[in-house]
Amino acid sequence: MAETRQVWRLAKRPVGDIRDGDLVFRDEPLPELQEGQFLLKVGYLSLDPTNRIWMSDMEQYMPPVELGAPMRGGVVGRVVASRKPGYEPGMLVAGFSEWASHIVTDGTGMGPFPEIPGLSVAQLFGTLAAVGPTAYFGLLDIGQPKPGETLVVSAAAGGVGQIVGQIGKLKGCKVIGIAGGADKCRYITQELGFDHAIDYKSQDVGAELDRIAPEGVDINFEQVGGKIMSAVLDRMKVFGRVPLCGMISGYNATDGEEEPGRWTMLLMRRLTIRGFIVSDFADRFPEAYQALIGWMLEGKVKTRQDVRPGLDKADEHVKLLYSGGNFGKLLVQVADI
Amino acid sequence: MAETRQVWRLAKRPVGDIRDGDLVFRDEPLPELQEGQFLLKVGYLSLDPTNRIWMSDMEQYMPPVELGAPMRGGVVGRVVASRKPGYEPGMLVAGFSEWASHIVTDGTGMGPFPEIPGLSVAQLFGTLAAVGPTAYFGLLDIGQPKPGETLVVSAAAGGVGQIVGQIGKLKGCKVIGIAGGADKCRYITQELGFDHAIDYKSQDVGAELDRIAPEGVDINFEQVGGKIMSAVLDRMKVFGRVPLCGMISGYNATDGEEEPGRWTMLLMRRLTIRGFIVSDFADRFPEAYQALIGWMLEGKVKTRQDVRPGLDKADEHVKLLYSGGNFGKLLVQVADI
Repeated sequence: MAETRQVWRLAKRPVGDIRDGDLVFRDEPLPELQEGQFLLKVGYLSLDPTNRIWMSDMEQYMPPVELGAPMRGGVVGRVVASRKPGYEPGMLVAGFSEWASHIVTDGTGMGPFPEIPGLSVAQLFGTLAAVGPTAYFGLLDIGQPKPGETLVVSAAAGGVGQIVGQIGKLKGCKVIGIAGGADKCRYITQELGFDHAIDYKSQDVGAELDRIAPEGVDINFEQVGGKIMSAVLDRMKVFGRVPLCGMISGYNATDGEEEPGRWTMLLMRRLTIRGFIVSDFADRFPEAYQALIGWMLEGKVKTRQDVRPGLDKADEHVKLLYSGGNFGKLLVQVADI
Repeated sequence: MAETRQVWRLAKRPVGDIRDGDLVFRDEPLPELQEGQFLLKVGYLSLDPTNRIWMSDMEQYMPPVELGAPMRGGVVGRVVASRKPGYEPGMLVAGFSEWASHIVTDGTGMGPFPEIPGLSVAQLFGTLAAVGPTAYFGLLDIGQPKPGETLVVSAAAGGVGQIVGQIGKLKGCKVIGIAGGADKCRYITQELGFDHAIDYKSQDVGAELDRIAPEGVDINFEQVGGKIMSAVLDRMKVFGRVPLCGMISGYNATDGEEEPGRWTMLLMRRLTIRGFIVSDFADRFPEAYQALIGWMLEGKVKTRQDVRPGLDKADEHVKLLYSGGNFGKLLVQVADI
């Protein structure tokens, strides 16, 4: 058994983009296993847009990572030693933990992770934790899609976006994805069945929406913020819904500027805007897991992971999220498990 | 029976404040009653913030009043002649119609209005049409007040605000009203039982909220917009709700400027913002009427009307709404009915 572990700690709060030295990578001794704890060998680390929020001291939905503390992240791994009943060696466990190769834990924030024949650990972890439930609750509970409605999703080839669009199609919506680059646009239309794609890097989002959705937008599943969000909001229909899932374009901003308010328009069109975090729906995760696993096994929801090797490069990999460099749900492969 | 009527027509779209000549007041011949029509002698005209919206060509929730057309407004009156079955002379009728002394109509947009012993026509009309249902649905359906929560309502001594606060108290909320001037502040706390009042004309709204509601705000029933809205939004609690009912501070604006967006905050605090117009709930008006009449008869909801005499001065009276000059629901008494 390993006697050391590798771990990323937050050394400095990034200003603007994440830079070398904001996170430090260290070998550390593994603490001895206490009664009620188990040792997890991490297989995959999930990298998510919210990581940048946790590194900062901006207003956020849970406490920021403390300086000097291990960087927070979602992981899946296998139990390799245990002094906790019910967590036997060999078992898959996933949850909120640390950017680390090995984790000694009492299991707080973690739980057993399913193994489903026909679905790889990366595929299942990259779908269920937690992009799938984010898409599921954000679209179904807040977006409330109805057949024939027009749904727009930004960051459409990313972890959440690809699932949002496919659930939208299952619910009978006309689905428009906004993504960066021809490859991603082709993927969401040709592989995932979105009706339209808009390439924000080469096209004018507003003008494209006017062309392909002259009827206006019923649901804007918002992940990006900034000018792309404004272009969609300006085209919302009366009684439209806006699940507010992310504002990634602003997470590295240093000026704190936001797109202008649209308060009068919100009133006149009677829009509903609701911010949410997937953990708000934690007590209903089993419902989402069941639906998503079913759709995956039936081939109705396909998910693409962007798996990058090497925990030691996690600080580089995470930057892909803010430049649009990932293609699918971004995971770091930490070890074979 | 009158052979002429007096009517206000929209001559010009106001730029900024309403000015002399934007609306013109005329004597006109009364059209002859056709089969299926009745003649209504108007008792009260309701003046509402939305009147200014209808005069403009800004984005709005129903078509603006056409230039040259009678000004649109809510009225209650008594049928004085009828060729429409079911609408007998002597009957009270209310609905969306015109700023006029007499109205010949087929009844579109109108319906019988109740007479309740113990409640005057002005009191009942000034409560049910449509400030009461606006308060009822906006607060209960969108605001979803729970006992112990903190509710802020702006324009708190106005037609809608006074009812919102009293329903909030019935639901067990801590209620804070924002109003202009000592008289209105005293009225909402001493007469209506609000817990606190903030006088926006003499106090710093944000600082006062910090003092009397350091716990933050669960529900902001928004009617005003502008800097007052921003001061409340900045103090919303996680999972807060914002029924967006009006933006009166902006209706006379000529620059189109809005308060800054707060998109990241909406997300992080998982706020729900929902714009609404009372007519969105038209199919449930009987539910609101029943509840409101019951509360009024029991003395649990008191409503104050600001009744101004003289249809010929309606163009002056309506301006009171935008300067905060009215105290209670603003009505014009057109005739004794």
